[in-house]
Amino acid sequence: MNRYPAPELKHVPDDIRARILEVQEKAGFVPNVFLALARRPAEWRAFFAYHDALMLPDESEQKVRTLSKGDREMIVTATSAANQCLYCVVAHGALLRIYEKKPLVADQVAVNYRKADITLRQRAMLDFAMKVCLHSHEIGEEDFAPLHAQGFTDEDIWDIAAITAFFGLSNRMASFSNMQPNPEFYLMGRVPKQK
Amino acid sequence: MNRYPAPELKHVPDDIRARILEVQEKAGFVPNVFLALARRPAEWRAFFAYHDALMLPDESEQKVRTLSKGDREMIVTATSAANQCLYCVVAHGALLRIYEKKPLVADQVAVNYRKADITLRQRAMLDFAMKVCLHSHEIGEEDFAPLHAQGFTDEDIWDIAAITAFFGLSNRMASFSNMQPNPEFYLMGRVPKQK
Amino acid sequence: MNRYPAPELKHVPDDIRARILEVQEKAGFVPNVFLALARRPAEWRAFFAYHDALMLPDESEQKVRTLSKGDREMIVTATSAANQCLYCVVAHGALLRIYEKKPLVADQVAVNYRKADITLRQRAMLDFAMKVCLHSHEIGEEDFAPLHAQGFTDEDIWDIAAITAFFGLSNRMASFSNMQPNPEFYLMGRVPKQK
Amino acid sequence: MNRYPAPELKHVPDDIRARILEVQEKAGFVPNVFLALARRPAEWRAFFAYHDALMLPDESEQKVRTLSKGDREMIVTATSAANQCLYCVVAHGALLRIYEKKPLVADQVAVNYRKADITLRQRAMLDFAMKVCLHSHEIGEEDFAPLHAQGFTDEDIWDIAAITAFFGLSNRMASFSNMQPNPEFYLMGRVPKQK
Amino acid sequence: MNRYPAPELKHVPDDIRARILEVQEKAGFVPNVFLALARRPAEWRAFFAYHDALMLPDESEQKVRTLSKGDREMIVTATSAANQCLYCVVAHGALLRIYEKKPLVADQVAVNYRKADITLRQRAMLDFAMKVCLHSHEIGEEDFAPLHAQGFTDEDIWDIAAITAFFGLSNRMASFSNMQPNPEFYLMGRVPKQK
Amino acid sequence: MNRYPAPELKHVPDDIRARILEVQEKAGFVPNVFLALARRPAEWRAFFAYHDALMLPDESEQKVRTLSKGDREMIVTATSAANQCLYCVVAHGALLRIYEKKPLVADQVAVNYRKADITLRQRAMLDFAMKVCLHSHEIGEEDFAPLHAQGFTDEDIWDIAAITAFFGLSNRMASFSNMQPNPEFYLMGRVPKQK
Repeated sequence: MNRYPAPELKHVPDDIRARILEVQEKAGFVPNVFLALARRPAEWRAFFAYHDALMLPDESEQKVRTLSKGDREMIVTATSAANQCLYCVVAHGALLRIYEKKPLVADQVAVNYRKADITLRQRAMLDFAMKVCLHSHEIGEEDFAPLHAQGFTDEDIWDIAAITAFFGLSNRMASFSNMQPNPEFYLMGRVPKQK
Repeated sequence: MNRYPAPELKHVPDDIRARILEVQEKAGFVPNVFLALARRPAEWRAFFAYHDALMLPDESEQKVRTLSKGDREMIVTATSAANQCLYCVVAHGALLRIYEKKPLVADQVAVNYRKADITLRQRAMLDFAMKVCLHSHEIGEEDFAPLHAQGFTDEDIWDIAAITAFFGLSNRMASFSNMQPNPEFYLMGRVPKQK
Repeated sequence: MNRYPAPELKHVPDDIRARILEVQEKAGFVPNVFLALARRPAEWRAFFAYHDALMLPDESEQKVRTLSKGDREMIVTATSAANQCLYCVVAHGALLRIYEKKPLVADQVAVNYRKADITLRQRAMLDFAMKVCLHSHEIGEEDFAPLHAQGFTDEDIWDIAAITAFFGLSNRMASFSNMQPNPEFYLMGRVPKQK
Repeated sequence: MNRYPAPELKHVPDDIRARILEVQEKAGFVPNVFLALARRPAEWRAFFAYHDALMLPDESEQKVRTLSKGDREMIVTATSAANQCLYCVVAHGALLRIYEKKPLVADQVAVNYRKADITLRQRAMLDFAMKVCLHSHEIGEEDFAPLHAQGFTDEDIWDIAAITAFFGLSNRMASFSNMQPNPEFYLMGRVPKQK
Repeated sequence: MNRYPAPELKHVPDDIRARILEVQEKAGFVPNVFLALARRPAEWRAFFAYHDALMLPDESEQKVRTLSKGDREMIVTATSAANQCLYCVVAHGALLRIYEKKPLVADQVAVNYRKADITLRQRAMLDFAMKVCLHSHEIGEEDFAPLHAQGFTDEDIWDIAAITAFFGLSNRMASFSNMQPNPEFYLMGRVPKQK
Repeated sequence: MNRYPAPELKHVPDDIRARILEVQEKAGFVPNVFLALARRPAEWRAFFAYHDALMLPDESEQKVRTLSKGDREMIVTATSAANQCLYCVVAHGALLRIYEKKPLVADQVAVNYRKADITLRQRAMLDFAMKVCLHSHEIGEEDFAPLHAQGFTDEDIWDIAAITAFFGLSNRMASFSNMQPNPEFYLMGRVPKQK
């Protein structure tokens, strides 16, 4: 499966193991990316620090960083689909369903976001994210106007670009190393919780 | 939603209504494509006749047409994803899960079939289908050898190509007319039947 | 030549043979597609039923389906060229020349329709057909306005999309099976009939 | 039609007019490119000097420059089709038909050279020409072997590349300036001469 | 210039300022990326932690992580050119010249690495890096063999992929925010130091 | 290095040698293209005649051909980068730096002209040149308006297109034959002359 064997949990540094156990506690399982990257602790720490900075912004910043958790996962799902990254589409599609409380939205965004049941604001957000993902060299001042028109702040636009860029890194690592999504992700958010 | 309003069931010709009721009986709902295309009965009849000829081959042909139902739906799912057709990926992904009895396979095939948990024979089948889908003008004699090596007959290869070609038609009709998959499809084959 | 041997006329089912003889009577030869597909009668019937529904609309529909025979063949020629399908460009290019009574138009449309001597209405028709052919997933509501502006009805737009989609199927079947156009097609419509 | 008006024949410099009259004498008409480029005499002279150096090699070089006239026009037709240049496909397709004495070959080569009725040697020649046309930066030493295997000399390979490169220039000039092929070209080589 | 104003050095957190001053001390100027990203300290810290983990591996790992500093900057230069990122091509091209002690190599690698004066081992390294950069979803087991044949370890291959992935993130951030390379970079490593 | 050995200077025809010596006198070295193409004198003469007609227009034409020497070299640098031609990017990038008196501009234009420090007029010029370079078949009347708006004459537009087309030829010849830029070019125009 994964081309690079993941370390056993007992062999990873304490700080990394602590975070992994915390995630396991919350999710009920350890998402494969946490163990797969742990074979290189320094990269692991940088990866998750970056992830948290983009996906879990401090509450004190809420006025200028207005993307919801659902918005953020939607960006990840759409751009990871453009990069054909199995791990991220499945894992973040699950989170997208949960945060948006929409069991169908992840499949829609992954297959063709233009057909998805999302807001006009989210459509503009994804149009920009896809350009960052696929043609970042062509981005110019004219690409900011439609986002401002939808009420996005400059900090939001930075977030859209940075989330796209960061998961472009994640997509390449997962695809190259053949990282597989945990089976649990496929069903999360599709059916009522108590199943 | 759908750009062209679907006719009411009571207004469609008898033969079409009969088939639709039969499908409804079996599936528990009417897949949108049946009503969406019914606004043009002649096209409807040709479409489903073609569909049946490719997807439901006569048992008498089983010796030379060896693709399983799962194989056929897998071709549809993979090539419809390449065409970014929401309707077909969701609807035929559901059938793929059911026929293959693999709740995860449709998402894998849709996102990146190279990472999917499928057989080598299926991988060769999808490599060929994707070339027919995306670069049919480049197909040459050399593309048949890997399929023969996996035990496919010439009739199987015709089936792979024809299924790809037919659903390329279906993909374009669904995308252009903004046909939406029924919500029921998204969950089919993911959880045990009696849920 | 053709990778799959065509059946002999005497071995095809009666209804198929009747249509083939009718075409031969009219054209003076049997276009290869009629025999090549006849090896699978069910697909043959569906294929030509679909063809007729799109290319030979009932006269009763003329008010809302306003594409001329020349328009229809022009769509086939342009999109088949985009798919690099030799059979369809040559065979339908011949019909295009005849219906439009323009000996040069098929070559123009096949090489670069933007340079062809066609009406603005036909140019808008081909712009849309090419998008259905090559990027159907990107079609949105905004693509309908230029067609309405040229007087196309919603039924016309359906026709443009469906003809493009159907011949995309035809293109893939012809290219994959190495179907060759009859030599007669190459010259049809280029010189006065009585030559 | 042509975006830049062509000069009248009487206004072009004597040497250019002499060549044009010579062509007219031979062909029965003046191919539009001769007049269209004559508005800039220095470019005209360079263009036709380059053309002649590549398309009319000196007989003394025949041992190492073995491409036939038909081969040369076949390269032009195939690569001009890849560049979607109407003028060159139609004009040089006509010459290709005449030199190869094959009324069907130009349409085949223009639509999809992989399906054309040409020799294996010509197929290798066109594979290389298309790579020079579309991906010249990817050409490496490994691309020369299949050509040597078909008996092409290094001078032949230079000819294939240079003809492709030169007509890539010609294609861009014709497309940008909307140069139209003379109607006479469309039919040349399709029917017996005495028409 | 930069779309997002960089903070003044005196306003950035102490740990960040310390690193910036250290770089300034060594390079003689502050590379713009250090200040541009400092407007978001958490992202800054993750970015440079990631950078250091990939570009400055611990000496204890040298046996299995054998890429030289020049190799690493060569990957950055080649893939940043594919992404058309001005900042990274210019800044890392400078480092590439210095580490490789080859004043011409950065321009060669940036324009067309296939023509660059590099070793066969570096050519294989860049072939893989470019595939991770542009088509990561197509990477399979067969892509590892040519790297092993050149003596790369599995850790080296991880490094090649991770450097490519990380600078793909960097490229997108720089292009989207219009980050400009410092003028000093353009000339570094081109002329003898004491100039 | 170069796949086709260049002739020795003493063996080239007198007129060609004279020009080569003149260039050597002026530049201090013989740019490789002058010797590499000299193995075929007729092509050499046509090539440089074309070059001169486009790059060294007669002063009498200055009213309608208003591109500066810097503009002309900028077109060559940008489009040669799109074609990934090492020789032309390096050699003409050097001339661009010298004529524009901007040591940084060539690298900017080569990596991503949208980020280069150039005028709006030059930006419009390069947008058009890139379209001629990459999608000449899509050029239409609507592409001329932005150029007229920037004050370009129709003769200027012809120059932009023709320079792009001519160096597209040059790019293909250089890449296919593996022509390497002289080392001198890499540094020209980057540092004050008296070095």
